[in-house]
Amino acid sequence: MSCAKGLAGVVAGQTKISSTDNQRLVYAGYPIEELAQKKFEEVVFLLWNTRLPEPAELITFSHDLVNKMVLPAETIRLLSYIAREPQHPMSILRTTTSLLGTTNDVEHDEPPKILAKILTAIAAIVRIRDDKPLIDFDPALGMADNFLYMLTGKKPTAELSVMFNTVMILHADHEFNASTFTARVVASTFSDYYSCLTAAVCALKGPLHGGANERVFEMLSDIVENKTAPLVFISEQIQAKRKIMGFGHRVYKHGDPRAFILKDIAEALAEKTNNQVYFKVQQQLAAYMLKHKQLHPNVDYYTALIYHCLGLKKETFTMIFAACRTAGWLAHVMEQREQKCLIRPNSEYVGPKIQHCVTQQSR
Amino acid sequence: MSCAKGLAGVVAGQTKISSTDNQRLVYAGYPIEELAQKKFEEVVFLLWNTRLPEPAELITFSHDLVNKMVLPAETIRLLSYIAREPQHPMSILRTTTSLLGTTNDVEHDEPPKILAKILTAIAAIVRIRDDKPLIDFDPALGMADNFLYMLTGKKPTAELSVMFNTVMILHADHEFNASTFTARVVASTFSDYYSCLTAAVCALKGPLHGGANERVFEMLSDIVENKTAPLVFISEQIQAKRKIMGFGHRVYKHGDPRAFILKDIAEALAEKTNNQVYFKVQQQLAAYMLKHKQLHPNVDYYTALIYHCLGLKKETFTMIFAACRTAGWLAHVMEQREQKCLIRPNSEYVGPKIQHCVTQQSR
Repeated sequence: MSCAKGLAGVVAGQTKISSTDNQRLVYAGYPIEELAQKKFEEVVFLLWNTRLPEPAELITFSHDLVNKMVLPAETIRLLSYIAREPQHPMSILRTTTSLLGTTNDVEHDEPPKILAKILTAIAAIVRIRDDKPLIDFDPALGMADNFLYMLTGKKPTAELSVMFNTVMILHADHEFNASTFTARVVASTFSDYYSCLTAAVCALKGPLHGGANERVFEMLSDIVENKTAPLVFISEQIQAKRKIMGFGHRVYKHGDPRAFILKDIAEALAEKTNNQVYFKVQQQLAAYMLKHKQLHPNVDYYTALIYHCLGLKKETFTMIFAACRTAGWLAHVMEQREQKCLIRPNSEYVGPKIQHCVTQQSR
Repeated sequence: MSCAKGLAGVVAGQTKISSTDNQRLVYAGYPIEELAQKKFEEVVFLLWNTRLPEPAELITFSHDLVNKMVLPAETIRLLSYIAREPQHPMSILRTTTSLLGTTNDVEHDEPPKILAKILTAIAAIVRIRDDKPLIDFDPALGMADNFLYMLTGKKPTAELSVMFNTVMILHADHEFNASTFTARVVASTFSDYYSCLTAAVCALKGPLHGGANERVFEMLSDIVENKTAPLVFISEQIQAKRKIMGFGHRVYKHGDPRAFILKDIAEALAEKTNNQVYFKVQQQLAAYMLKHKQLHPNVDYYTALIYHCLGLKKETFTMIFAACRTAGWLAHVMEQREQKCLIRPNSEYVGPKIQHCVTQQSR
C-alpha cells in the first residue's frame, strides 16, 4: 500500500448521478454533448432526480429556483463586511456559504433554496468587492441568465444566454472529484446541507482542484501583457519543468469532452469582446502541447478565457466554478444521505513503535 | 462492492500520528494512558513532531501557544454578531473557523497561532452567547487552563487543571475518524489550513460523529429531570429499538481506553459539583448495557457529564470536542501536505444506461 495513491482506483461509493466511464461524461446516462444545449435548470433537475423534467415540471422548477434568488437583509449586512476582506474570494465564499446556514430559519432549507441563495451570494460578493450596487433577480429570466445578470449588471443577449447556460451545465457535476467527495464524507455523518457545501468549497479552493482556471488566465495574461511569443514561453516553461496550466486530465486521455464545447464558446466570445489575442495564444499553446506532450486542454483551459470575456476578474473564476458545481454537490449530498453509511476509512500506522514516557522526575 | 461499506477496512493513507491498532490508542507510539497525565501542550508537540519535547522546548512551545490566544479586534466585532445567531453553536463555529482565515494577514498563519485562535474563538462564542464579557488569557497559565478560564471565567484549581488537561489530551486525536479524514482530503488539494479545519468542523457537527456527547447529556438529563428509574428508561428504549447514546465503538470491542480514564474524572467532578445523581444514573445504565448488550461506554459517555460539571451548556459540548481535536486535525493536515498526493477515489456508476435527449420540438 502506498499512500501516494490517494485512493486512486479505489471505489468509494455508488452513484446514479454522473459517470466518466469510457472517457465520456454522462449525467444520469445522458451524454454531456447533448445536455450542453439545455437550460441550466433542466440539468439541475436531471442531477437531482436522475430524469429530465416534463415541460410543465421544468417551468415550475425554474420559476421556483429563480424566485428563491434572494438573501435575508441580515446576510447582506454581514456580507458587506466580510466580502470586502482582502483575502481570496474563495475564502470569502467559504465564510459566506457557512454564514448562509447560520442565520435564522435555515434548518429546513432544501436544495432549491440553497442553490438559489449560493448563486445570489456569489453575485453579491463580486458586486460588493467591485463597489457596485447589488442587483435583484428578474423573474422573466432563467437561473443562469439571472446569475450572469446579477454578476455583471447586464441582461444577456439570446446568444450569450445559450453560451452561459452551456458553461454552467458543463461545470455542474463530475462524479467523485475531490470537492464532491468531501461533501459526501461530510454528508455521511448526517451533518447539514450547508456544512456539506462549505466543506466542498474548502476543497475546491485548493490549487490542485478548482484553483486551476484562475492560474490558466494568469498564464495567458502574462504572455499577452509581456508580448512573449507563445512558443518561446512554453518551451521555456517546459525546460524549467514548470507545469503548463489547463492541460491533461486523470480520466480523459483523448481530450476532455467539455473542452471541445468550451473552445467554440471561447472563440466566439473572444471575437465579440475583442479578446482574440488571448484565443490565438491558446490555440498556439494547445497545438504545441498536443504535438510535444500529447496533452489536450481540460475544462479549465477555455473556461478561463470565457470568464474573462464576460468581464469577470480572474480571482473570481473559481467562485463561478463553485456556483455551477453547487448543483452537483447538492445532488451527491442527497444521494449520500439516502445511502445512510458513514464514510470512515482505515489508516496504516507507520509511526514510532510502542514506547513509554520517562517521567520528568526521573530525568 | 457495496457502498454501504463507506470505505470501512480500506486503507486511505499512512500516518505516524496515532493508531488504534490492537484495541489501544497510541499517539506516536505512546499509550494514551501514559500521556493522559501530561500537559496538553506536551501532547500537542508530540502530535505535531512525532516526539515529546525536551523540558526547555516545552516551556518555549507552551509560552508561544498561550501568547497567541488573542483575536483581532475586527474578528471580535464580527463574532459579536455571528455568535448570537439562534443556530447551533457548531454552525457558529463553522462560520467562525472560516472567518478566522478571512481577516487580514492570515495567509502565513502557522499551526500554533491557528490552534490558539480557535480555542480563543470557541471561548468567545460561549461567552458572547451567555452575554458575559470576554476574558483575556493569563500568561501564568498553560493552554488548557487558559481555555477553561476563558470559557468559565474561573481559574482552575490545581486538581481541576490536571483533570481538564487529561480531557483535552484524550480528545486530541484518533487517527482517520470522519472529520480528520475530511481535513486530509481538503489538505490533499493544497487548500489552506483554515479551509481544512473548517471542513473538519463541518464533519464533526454530524450526529453520527461529534454530535454524540450532547445527545448523551440529553438522555441523562431526561432521566434525572423526569425522575425515571434508569433501568425502566433503558429497557423501554431497547424495546422501542432506540439507540442508547454513548455506548460501543467500531474499533474498541473491549471498551474505549479513553472512557476508563474519563470515568474517574466524571466521578470526582460529580462529587465536587453535587452532580452525583447523574453519575449514579450513568453507572446503572453502563452496568445494564454491559450485561445485556455487551457494550462498553465510549469517549462521549463520561465526557458529557464532565462538561456539565464544568458549568458548560450541552449545546456547547461538541465545540469543546472540536477545540481539543483541532490539535490532531492540524497534525494530520501537516502530514497530508507532506505526502503531496490528491485524495480522489473512484465511483461506481449505477445510474441509467446511455440515453439520448428527445428535443422539445420532436415531442
